[in-house]
Amino acid sequence: MRAGRAHWSAVTVPAPERIELLGAVAYGELAAFTRLAADAQQAPDLGGRTELAALAAVEMEHFERIRAHLAGRDVDVVESMRPFAEPFDAFHLTVAPKDWPEALLTAHLGRGLATDVLTEIGERLEGVEGELVRDVLVDSGYGAFVEREVRAACADRLVRDRLALHGRRLLGEALAAANAVLDGHPYVAAVVVDDQGGRAAMFKRVKLAHNRRLGALGL
Amino acid sequence: MRAGRAHWSAVTVPAPERIELLGAVAYGELAAFTRLAADAQQAPDLGGRTELAALAAVEMEHFERIRAHLAGRDVDVVESMRPFAEPFDAFHLTVAPKDWPEALLTAHLGRGLATDVLTEIGERLEGVEGELVRDVLVDSGYGAFVEREVRAACADRLVRDRLALHGRRLLGEALAAANAVLDGHPYVAAVVVDDQGGRAAMFKRVKLAHNRRLGALGL
Repeated sequence: MRAGRAHWSAVTVPAPERIELLGAVAYGELAAFTRLAADAQQAPDLGGRTELAALAAVEMEHFERIRAHLAGRDVDVVESMRPFAEPFDAFHLTVAPKDWPEALLTAHLGRGLATDVLTEIGERLEGVEGELVRDVLVDSGYGAFVEREVRAACADRLVRDRLALHGRRLLGEALAAANAVLDGHPYVAAVVVDDQGGRAAMFKRVKLAHNRRLGALGL
Repeated sequence: MRAGRAHWSAVTVPAPERIELLGAVAYGELAAFTRLAADAQQAPDLGGRTELAALAAVEMEHFERIRAHLAGRDVDVVESMRPFAEPFDAFHLTVAPKDWPEALLTAHLGRGLATDVLTEIGERLEGVEGELVRDVLVDSGYGAFVEREVRAACADRLVRDRLALHGRRLLGEALAAANAVLDGHPYVAAVVVDDQGGRAAMFKRVKLAHNRRLGALGL
């Protein structure tokens, strides 16, 4: 458990709702895959292209585990994802990286945000669905490449200033997307937070962790 | 072993050359990932997007196994891929699908061609590299989705005629790319074919299998 974290407790969410929540996680993975795969094509060299393609594939590995879990319960992952496409797509469209350094930063911070949110969900979600989320988290094959490259890009002050701005926008848009998902899907909200105070506290934790990541990059 | 296949025998290729050959296989996987991931974005619906994204990720799973094998021998996969980028990229550029049915057909036939060529390599390549290629082949997680969708698209006669043309072009360009790779890389040629007659015989086998796949689709 992280420092600064007050009390939390697992909430009782019926299995069908827990299963539906996995649709949000699955679409999050697919959307991240889409972003990373597109950004891989913007790489200035074969090494960068390889690394982002590899990260994209990790998203689909997680996706496949969720798909298999849902299929075992006669739930079609495509149908379960559908309600979540709009807020995730809106998020990715708004923060679409304009160049390679922004793509790297988006990959790094986006992965961090996703990990934070999944950790919150994994801590609170009961049953095999909770196990699945925790399991996927452990297996985040996230290399040091992106962080190293972002640091190198930050050596240029103009780039650093631009990235600092992009990093802040990313958080704002991520929280807006999270709000949209939580407002539109009460069962997701029931897992992630138990009331409005809980939501604000969760957002605060996510914000702190995000700012720590920015700080670590000198942004 | 397939019918119509004459004699073949494993050739003795020194380990460094066998390792270098894996660079070609790795780049083939990365190039296929790139194509499939881009085509996933052209999908008319979430189901199609999901399937092509999943196929793209399978390419990277194979890629990662080759990367790990090379890393264990202090070989950087990026360096080993570099000599093969040009012919593979030229191939993919020339046969870039213009719409969704062409993307599906390219995925289906491209996977078939890759499997045929890797089977040839796997049959002839010695040592752990041969095992690796055979292992990757067994694990080709290729669903029935693409084939079913191509069949559905072929119900429209105009689409079918266009796809028949695309399928034939695909073979021609694939063989041209294969020629370029074999001409430029004697050790690859030494594994895949032992002389010019062998190359012609191999191309004939690949062509037959390709035409069988076209025929099975009514193309």
